[in-house]
Amino acid sequence: MPYPLADVPTPALLVDLDRVDANVARAQAYADANDVALRPHTKTHKSPRFAQQQLHAGARGVCVAKLGEAELMVDSGIGDVFMPHTIATSDKAARAVALAQRARFAIGADHPRQLEVLSAAAAGRGRALDVMIEVDTGSGRGGADPEAVQSLLTQLRDLPGLRARGLYTYEGYTYAAGDVASLRSRHHEAQGVMARLAERVADLLVDHPEISMGSTPSLLAQVPLLPTITEVRPGTSIFLDAAQATIGGEADWCAAHVLATVVSVQSGRAVLDAGSKALTSDTRPDGVAASPGFGRLVDHDLTITSLSEEHGVIRDGRADRLEVGARVRVLMNHVCPVVNLFSHMHLVRGGEVVEVLEVAGRGRVV
Amino acid sequence: MPYPLADVPTPALLVDLDRVDANVARAQAYADANDVALRPHTKTHKSPRFAQQQLHAGARGVCVAKLGEAELMVDSGIGDVFMPHTIATSDKAARAVALAQRARFAIGADHPRQLEVLSAAAAGRGRALDVMIEVDTGSGRGGADPEAVQSLLTQLRDLPGLRARGLYTYEGYTYAAGDVASLRSRHHEAQGVMARLAERVADLLVDHPEISMGSTPSLLAQVPLLPTITEVRPGTSIFLDAAQATIGGEADWCAAHVLATVVSVQSGRAVLDAGSKALTSDTRPDGVAASPGFGRLVDHDLTITSLSEEHGVIRDGRADRLEVGARVRVLMNHVCPVVNLFSHMHLVRGGEVVEVLEVAGRGRVV
Repeated sequence: MPYPLADVPTPALLVDLDRVDANVARAQAYADANDVALRPHTKTHKSPRFAQQQLHAGARGVCVAKLGEAELMVDSGIGDVFMPHTIATSDKAARAVALAQRARFAIGADHPRQLEVLSAAAAGRGRALDVMIEVDTGSGRGGADPEAVQSLLTQLRDLPGLRARGLYTYEGYTYAAGDVASLRSRHHEAQGVMARLAERVADLLVDHPEISMGSTPSLLAQVPLLPTITEVRPGTSIFLDAAQATIGGEADWCAAHVLATVVSVQSGRAVLDAGSKALTSDTRPDGVAASPGFGRLVDHDLTITSLSEEHGVIRDGRADRLEVGARVRVLMNHVCPVVNLFSHMHLVRGGEVVEVLEVAGRGRVV
Repeated sequence: MPYPLADVPTPALLVDLDRVDANVARAQAYADANDVALRPHTKTHKSPRFAQQQLHAGARGVCVAKLGEAELMVDSGIGDVFMPHTIATSDKAARAVALAQRARFAIGADHPRQLEVLSAAAAGRGRALDVMIEVDTGSGRGGADPEAVQSLLTQLRDLPGLRARGLYTYEGYTYAAGDVASLRSRHHEAQGVMARLAERVADLLVDHPEISMGSTPSLLAQVPLLPTITEVRPGTSIFLDAAQATIGGEADWCAAHVLATVVSVQSGRAVLDAGSKALTSDTRPDGVAASPGFGRLVDHDLTITSLSEEHGVIRDGRADRLEVGARVRVLMNHVCPVVNLFSHMHLVRGGEVVEVLEVAGRGRVV
């Protein structure tokens, strides 16, 4: 039975299903328009329920951040999972190989040692383990230098148990662009690196290899994709957040909020019962996705100006207008780690709670 | 059966029990030396096991951040719980009243509306609900202005179902002190405010009221307490962290670390499999508790220079020395929200895992 939001104890994570439906359709439409496969990243919702919705809407498969998330998704019946992250130890390699026996599974690599560890676990264990080589197109986080990719692929070809499915990058540095025009040109450059590299190493990859790009900003900015790109991996696009809403999106596209209560009002400040344990302390101080403070009260023109573990404080002369006991919806800076803090999300349609969904992948850090 | 750390999948939260024992004893010794009661804050460990250890060492009771944490502790048999946080809605007031029937329980208040809500729930429901009035001694977060306390206590006296147990403050702004000397003088000022206020409003409080101070820095800096102060509420002191270790403590007092694996090394950078979903994005940029970056590799002279959700990146020429597959211990900036991210902690003695303990209070945000 649906019940009113007024009955939800705070802080709570609310997810509006009408907005989710629109966001899922928007991501699929972007992939379709560019003739690429959509492989949404489940790190945002951490829930088989939303993964299934994305697949029903047309996604080819999902991607995940951790083996524990991959196991959750395969256990729930999802048959195509890519983990665009690297591992370096034999215990995890064994889990990756086990996944490859149960589903169409691929894992990332960007270093010779990882390939050795994966091969040692995969050799002679049934189906080959698909590997995607991560390319650093500028993020400076994960990924091999483009000049090193040929050597990694040659090593991969000569190791037993592995198969080179393709190349991927995470062009997360586009977030640092100052505006949408600069974001678009950075994305084009990253695509160019991937396309030139794919051509150069084609003989070391499987036929029809995957050339995969990540990140939600490109779809919000409707960046056209080169023909070489075969797949995109947006994560945040299903829920969006304050940062994403500033990139070509609309604030009312955002599907997830934290419902909080004003517990106290003193002169010039209001205090919410949601702090860093509900909102994270992630900030977005600059770039195209800049959002001020630690979250925005969407039904008031107010921003959380400081956070401690259990309190969000709004230091603003206009905060005196908030009533003690009032409930407010907070649009957070970064939705993905917020979902990971909650054990459950309250699914909302038409302003009423229609289901309380477990965040099944919460805390699967291993 | 104990087993080696080498068998623990990463990232994992390690807690060294020998160091915990020493830290629990140190907090108790500080309280004993100052002739005050110790009421440790369970927000740090979120575990009845550690709360029981603190009580066995001499603590009078515990304090908690949320009603869900209070219920966990009372359910586990702990009989004396104070929640130094405020609530403003009838559903939560009813839960507070229920707790007061089952244990010696008190709750904070700093606003007239909270007292009305608490009284409405408590009137005629058996034992009176004990209320502690929160005083803002300078944090600017929670707490009434000292000048407003008399009026709150007068209101409290006239409302049915409530009893004024005492006053408390959270002197968290001492963290902003530039050095230990300044921290000590700020703490003395806060104590002075509390002592003068306690004298002024004595006739509105119960006999032998509690006058309670919070925060770990005062015990690390061994700040002497005025005779009026009856209780201290340190939280972090049981585990300590990079921030606390800089205040009169020693790095090898720190009991909690995140075990991580080096998953990749590229020129001038190493990448760990622990990011903001294992370490939080809390920073400590300045003040007496300043700690650089996002965590410190305690067995190497290296600091995590950037974090994303699943990756900690060490951008440092010397990072090339780390081997792919190597396991490192990270001392985090702020331990309390890190514990809240993990479902379990690995308890270590003599370098071996002796128990895997559920973080029973994780995610109890309501």
